[in-house]
Amino acid sequence: MASPGTLDDFLEQLASAAPTPGGGSAAAIMGAMGAALVSMVCNVTIGKKGYEGVEAEMKAVLQESEKVRRRLTAMVAEDIAAFDSIMAAYKLPKTTDEDQTMRAAAIQAGLRCATETPLDCARVCAEVIALARRASEHGYLNVISDGGVGVLAGFTALRSAALNVYINAPALKDRAFAERATAELEKLVEFCAAESEAVYKIVRDKLG
Amino acid sequence: MASPGTLDDFLEQLASAAPTPGGGSAAAIMGAMGAALVSMVCNVTIGKKGYEGVEAEMKAVLQESEKVRRRLTAMVAEDIAAFDSIMAAYKLPKTTDEDQTMRAAAIQAGLRCATETPLDCARVCAEVIALARRASEHGYLNVISDGGVGVLAGFTALRSAALNVYINAPALKDRAFAERATAELEKLVEFCAAESEAVYKIVRDKLG
Repeated sequence: MASPGTLDDFLEQLASAAPTPGGGSAAAIMGAMGAALVSMVCNVTIGKKGYEGVEAEMKAVLQESEKVRRRLTAMVAEDIAAFDSIMAAYKLPKTTDEDQTMRAAAIQAGLRCATETPLDCARVCAEVIALARRASEHGYLNVISDGGVGVLAGFTALRSAALNVYINAPALKDRAFAERATAELEKLVEFCAAESEAVYKIVRDKLG
Repeated sequence: MASPGTLDDFLEQLASAAPTPGGGSAAAIMGAMGAALVSMVCNVTIGKKGYEGVEAEMKAVLQESEKVRRRLTAMVAEDIAAFDSIMAAYKLPKTTDEDQTMRAAAIQAGLRCATETPLDCARVCAEVIALARRASEHGYLNVISDGGVGVLAGFTALRSAALNVYINAPALKDRAFAERATAELEKLVEFCAAESEAVYKIVRDKLG
């Protein structure tokens, strides 16, 4: 898949039997939607009467959320490339012993990439959640539900990325790396579960 | 916004200060992604060696998930139309008493639409979760993480749609309708929270 094209095309490709785009790409896009909604809350709040006191904070959040949005959007292609590298490795010749050694190494390299990419996605989604907190605490009340959707999208993107680590990590021969990745992820999921529910509650309480 | 265009355009518009697309559209798209991932699991499983016994079930799920995906994709435009109808109502003249009565009625009609649309979105997302269960129970093991991402996306879409009901319902003069909508939603959220975690657990346990 060269470019996701239109939204309809993307959904069509996601639904198809083609291996990419899959859940890893969907995770990155949900994260990017979360970041975009944080940006929206900031963009609407900046310049709004009565919100002068939080303008500097909203501008600071916006700068970060736009950076994070671009990073997550780029991860769609990275997820696809990682998956494709595993598929390509499986297609390598396996006739001689040397072939087999090379092929096994290429599969491991692909798997490592397909573990690091969603782990990195999860780390960036944690930033979306932190930014959603700042936007939801200080943003314009009439768009505060968008901050709430932002934090929900960020956390689901994080858990979705985690599932992509869990499916690839068991096949990694480098157990030390696999266990480090899984342990980091579990901490991140635990912390962000509590944090995103706290942000959701801030939003829900403001809605009356 | 006539058409969401490319994924990048959509994210760009989501991030902007423009009132649409917002969290309601993001909810519908996340739901559609959930449905698409259910379809993907089915499409990959159908025809797979060793999965002959579940082929009829996967075909039945696929037929439903594709219907649900189309329904949720169409809801992006419905969400935007509902929001635009409120904005248009607020711009109506309010000089005479008659103007004011008309304007108030138009605002109420818009708000009702902006409550019914996300409520309907939440109902359809509950179907995504039920379909994700069937796909995750019987689908091809190598794509089972996609079923997991599907159920997470479906439930976050449901909660996101709920936030859009919560932000609009308090301003509704028809309290009976507002309370009915909120009560239905709360039941749906509660049931689907437990259901989606159960499906997530099915997937997580299969990943080892």
